[in-house]
Amino acid sequence: MKILFIGDIVGSPGRNMLAEYLPRLKKSYKPDVTVVNGENAAHGKGLTEKIYKQLLEIGADVITMGNHTWDKREIFEYINDANSLVVPANFPPATPGKGYKVLNVNGQKVAVINLIGRTFMADQDCPFRKADEILKQLPEDTAQIFVDFHAETTSEKQALGWYLDGRVTAVCGTHTHVQTADERILPQGTGYISDVGMTGPYDGILGMSRDAVMKKFLTNLPVKFEVEEGREQINGVFIQAAPRQKAVQKMKRIAVNDEQPLMD
Amino acid sequence: MKILFIGDIVGSPGRNMLAEYLPRLKKSYKPDVTVVNGENAAHGKGLTEKIYKQLLEIGADVITMGNHTWDKREIFEYINDANSLVVPANFPPATPGKGYKVLNVNGQKVAVINLIGRTFMADQDCPFRKADEILKQLPEDTAQIFVDFHAETTSEKQALGWYLDGRVTAVCGTHTHVQTADERILPQGTGYISDVGMTGPYDGILGMSRDAVMKKFLTNLPVKFEVEEGREQINGVFIQAAPRQKAVQKMKRIAVNDEQPLMD
Amino acid sequence: MKILFIGDIVGSPGRNMLAEYLPRLKKSYKPDVTVVNGENAAHGKGLTEKIYKQLLEIGADVITMGNHTWDKREIFEYINDANSLVVPANFPPATPGKGYKVLNVNGQKVAVINLIGRTFMADQDCPFRKADEILKQLPEDTAQIFVDFHAETTSEKQALGWYLDGRVTAVCGTHTHVQTADERILPQGTGYISDVGMTGPYDGILGMSRDAVMKKFLTNLPVKFEVEEGREQINGVFIQAAPRQKAVQKMKRIAVNDEQPLMD
Amino acid sequence: MKILFIGDIVGSPGRNMLAEYLPRLKKSYKPDVTVVNGENAAHGKGLTEKIYKQLLEIGADVITMGNHTWDKREIFEYINDANSLVVPANFPPATPGKGYKVLNVNGQKVAVINLIGRTFMADQDCPFRKADEILKQLPEDTAQIFVDFHAETTSEKQALGWYLDGRVTAVCGTHTHVQTADERILPQGTGYISDVGMTGPYDGILGMSRDAVMKKFLTNLPVKFEVEEGREQINGVFIQAAPRQKAVQKMKRIAVNDEQPLMD
Ligand SMILES: [Fe+2]
Ligand SMILES: [Fe+2]
Ligand SMILES: [Fe+2]
Ligand SMILES: [Fe+2]
Ligand SMILES: [Fe+2]
Ligand SMILES: [Fe+2]
Ligand SMILES: [Fe+2]
Ligand SMILES: [Fe+2]
Repeated sequence: MKILFIGDIVGSPGRNMLAEYLPRLKKSYKPDVTVVNGENAAHGKGLTEKIYKQLLEIGADVITMGNHTWDKREIFEYINDANSLVVPANFPPATPGKGYKVLNVNGQKVAVINLIGRTFMADQDCPFRKADEILKQLPEDTAQIFVDFHAETTSEKQALGWYLDGRVTAVCGTHTHVQTADERILPQGTGYISDVGMTGPYDGILGMSRDAVMKKFLTNLPVKFEVEEGREQINGVFIQAAPRQKAVQKMKRIAVNDEQPLMD
Repeated sequence: MKILFIGDIVGSPGRNMLAEYLPRLKKSYKPDVTVVNGENAAHGKGLTEKIYKQLLEIGADVITMGNHTWDKREIFEYINDANSLVVPANFPPATPGKGYKVLNVNGQKVAVINLIGRTFMADQDCPFRKADEILKQLPEDTAQIFVDFHAETTSEKQALGWYLDGRVTAVCGTHTHVQTADERILPQGTGYISDVGMTGPYDGILGMSRDAVMKKFLTNLPVKFEVEEGREQINGVFIQAAPRQKAVQKMKRIAVNDEQPLMD
Repeated sequence: MKILFIGDIVGSPGRNMLAEYLPRLKKSYKPDVTVVNGENAAHGKGLTEKIYKQLLEIGADVITMGNHTWDKREIFEYINDANSLVVPANFPPATPGKGYKVLNVNGQKVAVINLIGRTFMADQDCPFRKADEILKQLPEDTAQIFVDFHAETTSEKQALGWYLDGRVTAVCGTHTHVQTADERILPQGTGYISDVGMTGPYDGILGMSRDAVMKKFLTNLPVKFEVEEGREQINGVFIQAAPRQKAVQKMKRIAVNDEQPLMD
Repeated sequence: MKILFIGDIVGSPGRNMLAEYLPRLKKSYKPDVTVVNGENAAHGKGLTEKIYKQLLEIGADVITMGNHTWDKREIFEYINDANSLVVPANFPPATPGKGYKVLNVNGQKVAVINLIGRTFMADQDCPFRKADEILKQLPEDTAQIFVDFHAETTSEKQALGWYLDGRVTAVCGTHTHVQTADERILPQGTGYISDVGMTGPYDGILGMSRDAVMKKFLTNLPVKFEVEEGREQINGVFIQAAPRQKAVQKMKRIAVNDEQPLMD
């Protein structure tokens, strides 16, 4: 079973990169499932229905989210019909949307779970216990379980990776918008990477306007965070798992940008 | 000019790895200057005088620090004599130690600056303005300026990188203990990486006991954070700069562990 | 039904004040139930078994806690037998201790609940939903429900007060160690105060050494937080509720110190 | 010298209360100087020019601000001409506005300083060192120095109070929107109160819509924070200082609301 995961799509540069490179990456990696984090896809914050559908058309099977889930208010109108949208499962119960989805892929059940961290983020339910809870709910014959853990700190991310080692196929981090070089297969077979990075501007600060972010740090004055212009990048990870068990055989980082072209 | 920078040494596993690999890395890369972050070198927190000297003996030219600078109280006794120790320059003025050091390397002046971030960290002086201040103080003929920016978030790190682009040789992040895959040369010539990663246990959580950290996240109960045992790793970056200007020609990540042996 | 609640006892000055004034306050106010927050009773941090028993001997019926619950490790040994000890109910389930206690007071059931906030504090379970959960568990004929909400921000405290208005007798805040002047009876009858204040040193900073705390703010250097010496204070609130319903008739702040002597 | 300080004016309910009660309070207390915190005066966030002028017309001599200083963008257009507006002095140097103002009151110099805290707030310059710096800049014959310290935690507020004890007339806290009952005269003569409270809705949560704030705590969903409607309150403090020295003779809390009418 092959899974392709693409990190936070930021604005139109992110969508452009996805449209340009996802077909080529699919050709190279032949994933059975493609997961894309879409929390920043609409102007850097949130996801409109139109863009949600666009990401699916480009080739995503499941869209995951994060702390920017509710930034575009129209999501409350389409989320109940958005069958391929998964939002952090440990958001409080009174919130709309589903926290995981079980796909049928070539006769196998593949679960995609979205969780969000708490350290230096909003107060949510415990992601560790929520993961336990979902694992109990999943069909017994679920062949693969993919987790997008949207979190700030490396400690919380690594802790969840080790906590779920041997129980899920992979724990892949998002949110920092910077790809980490720590992709690995943990001792019990779970693939892990602290962050897969983002997809969008290459010369921004986390994809947003450099000047605005620097001004913010220097002055604390209000700034308008726009998606940066110019060069672009796409980041993600490719996971190859043993067919019918939660054990990864290969974790390969994907990073394409002006300085690192895609070698098909 | 070649600079080798090794990320946070964690406890005796970190010192062991440094002792084993620094000589081999020096043989491969022939650095003119070797900088080592030592904030976790003594049992995972702080730096004793004995270990400070040990790191120098192993081959470090300058030791940089971070939020754990004061964790071993004896540092107040030896810091004034610790000529090769640099602590975050934007600590409040009433703290001991120096925030940068100018080395004479083959007739060239090389400055090593340590700065610390503020986002999700303690309240310190502004690292951006402190950097400006130090740049004004440095001798005009300083050929290379290396910055260890010890910070939590990718946004603050990238912001400082872009802020100093063209004004320093390199901005290399530390503190998250996870190496990022975003090493690059910014448009004005400054080498940048969000985090070089740590040196010490390979199967810990940031180098500390997995079980303790997981228990903390699951229960919030007090736990004793010990340095993890078992396999080890060393992480850093190699920087090659143009001889007499702050422009990097090459940024190469270094990561050695059980699964990625060193290819000399 | 009369309830006397005394805020965070800090170290031996706090215990001294309690021993001196609780008998006098009882004589004046004739409370049916006396609740004392004990999270700082042992040297400013945590609660030993000896001090737990001492607080009961002085006259507390129930001891509540907060973020310092586990600071004295011996609590893990006596907590299961500490029948009058209540710790934050929204601590994760895997922690010892009980989150509420139902007392039989003159033939009436009185519940004492301890909850802890999350804003600017550790990641815990949701105190709002935990309150709902406990209210469902309480015996139907519970006459009075007292809540010690140990939280940092006025917004989270006021929000819980309004959330529980009409469903509990009183929501009294602790943790900031400063008594607020906003005691009131909310429209549905619940008594409310953002913080009842602390009991212990009068000339410290939250009861701890002024010099240490000021040094911390000025330098970020490690300091030893000792309980301050000198003048002392006791702070709390007196609540008079209608006999068999959760409706408060009177909320009276209590503050005794060198400048405001107790008028019996 | 008599100083009247009114806490954070929240929206039109706050302005209404100020218009109604400031004249009556002035009649009772006969202040020589009236300071009003205006950071929430425009719809709960920020200050427009029109409202700035309105507050002065109602009777404020100086307007102080806080973390909401820049929330109404038009402030950048009028701040340079707003002679009676003081914003946190420890905002970074590259921000507009002045951090203190020296008034001439009956032939005496009275300084009004605004500082902002850092704990659980944005990263600003050190308020302690900034206070030292301003005290050095003030004319030697400054008779009274009033400090509005806009901060979140009681520890940072008390620390500044003790730090400035004997060097300023009074340190009065704002920002939590809840009046504290700890007004006192510190040993060296400085008047102190952790928070003077807010002016505006009486049945809101910090003045904002109860329902919105509760929904936020329960769900983390985006909510629109509107100023609450209904009953109103005004809070502040009256300070009487010795004529020509920084020593307070009297600190009196002022709290007027539906349940505590003003007794002229
Ligand atoms: Fe994102
Ligand atoms: Fe995010
Ligand atoms: Fe470190
Ligand atoms: Fe660190
Ligand atoms: Fe306390
Ligand atoms: Fe506390
Ligand atoms: Fe305010
Ligand atoms: Fe504020």
